[in-house]
Amino acid sequence: MSDPSHLASAAADLLTRVRNRRPLIHHITNFVVMNATANITLCAGALPVMAHARQEVEDMASAADALVLNLGTLWPEQVEAMLLAGGRANAKGIPIVLDPVGAGATPFRTESAHRLLQDLSIAVVRGNAAEIAALTGIEAQIRGVESTAPAADPAAIALACARRYRSVAVVTGPVDVIADGERLVRVRNGHPLMAAVTGTGCMATAVIAAFAAVEARAPLAAAAALACYGIAGERAAAQAQGPATFQMHLFDALANLREPEILAGARIDSADR
Amino acid sequence: MSDPSHLASAAADLLTRVRNRRPLIHHITNFVVMNATANITLCAGALPVMAHARQEVEDMASAADALVLNLGTLWPEQVEAMLLAGGRANAKGIPIVLDPVGAGATPFRTESAHRLLQDLSIAVVRGNAAEIAALTGIEAQIRGVESTAPAADPAAIALACARRYRSVAVVTGPVDVIADGERLVRVRNGHPLMAAVTGTGCMATAVIAAFAAVEARAPLAAAAALACYGIAGERAAAQAQGPATFQMHLFDALANLREPEILAGARIDSADR
Amino acid sequence: MSDPSHLASAAADLLTRVRNRRPLIHHITNFVVMNATANITLCAGALPVMAHARQEVEDMASAADALVLNLGTLWPEQVEAMLLAGGRANAKGIPIVLDPVGAGATPFRTESAHRLLQDLSIAVVRGNAAEIAALTGIEAQIRGVESTAPAADPAAIALACARRYRSVAVVTGPVDVIADGERLVRVRNGHPLMAAVTGTGCMATAVIAAFAAVEARAPLAAAAALACYGIAGERAAAQAQGPATFQMHLFDALANLREPEILAGARIDSADR
Repeated sequence: MSDPSHLASAAADLLTRVRNRRPLIHHITNFVVMNATANITLCAGALPVMAHARQEVEDMASAADALVLNLGTLWPEQVEAMLLAGGRANAKGIPIVLDPVGAGATPFRTESAHRLLQDLSIAVVRGNAAEIAALTGIEAQIRGVESTAPAADPAAIALACARRYRSVAVVTGPVDVIADGERLVRVRNGHPLMAAVTGTGCMATAVIAAFAAVEARAPLAAAAALACYGIAGERAAAQAQGPATFQMHLFDALANLREPEILAGARIDSADR
Repeated sequence: MSDPSHLASAAADLLTRVRNRRPLIHHITNFVVMNATANITLCAGALPVMAHARQEVEDMASAADALVLNLGTLWPEQVEAMLLAGGRANAKGIPIVLDPVGAGATPFRTESAHRLLQDLSIAVVRGNAAEIAALTGIEAQIRGVESTAPAADPAAIALACARRYRSVAVVTGPVDVIADGERLVRVRNGHPLMAAVTGTGCMATAVIAAFAAVEARAPLAAAAALACYGIAGERAAAQAQGPATFQMHLFDALANLREPEILAGARIDSADR
Repeated sequence: MSDPSHLASAAADLLTRVRNRRPLIHHITNFVVMNATANITLCAGALPVMAHARQEVEDMASAADALVLNLGTLWPEQVEAMLLAGGRANAKGIPIVLDPVGAGATPFRTESAHRLLQDLSIAVVRGNAAEIAALTGIEAQIRGVESTAPAADPAAIALACARRYRSVAVVTGPVDVIADGERLVRVRNGHPLMAAVTGTGCMATAVIAAFAAVEARAPLAAAAALACYGIAGERAAAQAQGPATFQMHLFDALANLREPEILAGARIDSADR
């Protein structure tokens, strides 16, 4: 991962690979975004399946190519199901992508996120600056699930999280930052309207999982996913009259995204740190 | 049910009957599609109500004109609630429509579907080829909730399921097949974009329930419902730029569907077997 | 609250206040509308957070500026979580807005609504005529969650409910009625297409909560919220081809609503009774 044009080309290749292989993404996720994340998974070219009962999560994870764990409307039995599914995913060697929605907002969420990060091998953890900061002990402000004025810069937060958990950490925001403990990758695609719709962060996580299912280098998978998703957002914004028309066009734009648009539009840069 | 123009006319009459009577459809369904299936029920002209607590499902089923049981995000307590509501529906004589989402994907889903089919009298069971095959013991492939390359043809699968459970079995796909153990009805309406949106199968089930609530001949109700829904899909596709605009127009197209469009567009044929 | 132009002006001011303060609205709500009510909260200018686990509802309510309790897909543990969150909200002095979806349809819903109204101090309770009637003992008809032919007029129902529970009672319908036990306020905004989409009542409740979070006079907050939401509905209807396009434009219209449109369009009147 080095020069920008090479990274744009890799992003286009990965999207094609997702569409050709149609990986199955098992989501254990929150009730607010279940429909939206299933649909964005389809728009990326992958197949979604939602299953959260302890009685079946191991079977479903066994059939899957990646596992999404999203804490957005967590309850205790769901944490147990996540640990079961995650154990199976780790045994099978498929990537787990964690979305610690609202970490920092309540002890239950923060502690559940910690437990998953400690007991499982998580390939990618994605959140906003406040959520990822909460996992590292860096001070930050969160209101509900919204990041407000984190005390440190996103790169420092992502690096601290990546080092602490030996995971790839992704902080999304106006500029997305991806850290694997040594390097930083930044993706400068996207649009402010994404912040006006609920679940756009959770949707980003789902797209990352679709890409991670077909590419073992998790920083590359995350960068490619966020570039494609962000370009779709830019294209959707051009047709939007407000948040709801934006969201509708975001789905269509990702489903319709083609290689030349990625080559021309991806804004990914990589740097050692 | 014999010649195509008679069937088209019957479909148009049934849609009018749904709109005039506004039957109440009690859904015990999955979290991914709750909003979408409530809205498609409204667009068909019926009234939806979602209720899944054991404390109230019998009361709600008592007030309803049809009951939908959908296994898409099943958990054990929900199976119990389905058995309670189903028992009341059977006692009252209102039709139950079962959607065995993901049957074949995990033992929990397959066994729960079996249990419901054995303990309750199910008027219609609707799924994709792999799901319905899983209920009959016919070998098939399923990835998550997606049917991939079933080993037998949809008509054979539908007939086997109908005979085993003395139910009307519906296999939806490029051509929808409806079997009651003796006869086959095929509906050739619909559009490939339906496969690009999550929950379009579940929505088909909801529309079937709305029609079954006002027509006791379940194969006719199912065929009419799938023809109307499929025509709405064809009309929506003409306005769609991608999966999300398609889904939006699908709702509108069903709500706006009028008799002449059904008479001209329904492609239903019936054959003894 | 007296002359109409003053009320329109107050409504415009309140919307601006919501957008400036961005209050955090904690929703314990039903699965059908979780996504829609989160998004309408954002469109009003507030921040939504959904959390329902007993382990965290008190923490989340402590961080919030208003609490929504919605009974649409109730189960027993959720009632307990509502009582915990509500107790914290009352202790902290933030308003609770209750949506007794389906009260009257099953004893479980009616009794749960009663319990919440008796054990908590509820700032505003909003429902359709049948739901609010069910809370007062006035005879009414309900089918599922749909009000059909209530026996009394909405104003009488709202007043009876407000007096019984010392709360502000809101009955929404073709004309919305707001009662605080002494006075009545009527809002004549809105559009019939609102009845064609699931969850528009729940969305009204969410908007009321956003306004109540920044204005202690609950009848004024409710009237302003319903006027803004209704005007958005009128504007959305002008662009709609059916229920789904209507809903999409409703979100955008509320997000885009500006002061002159409120001043020109609000139809609020107030009367002692």
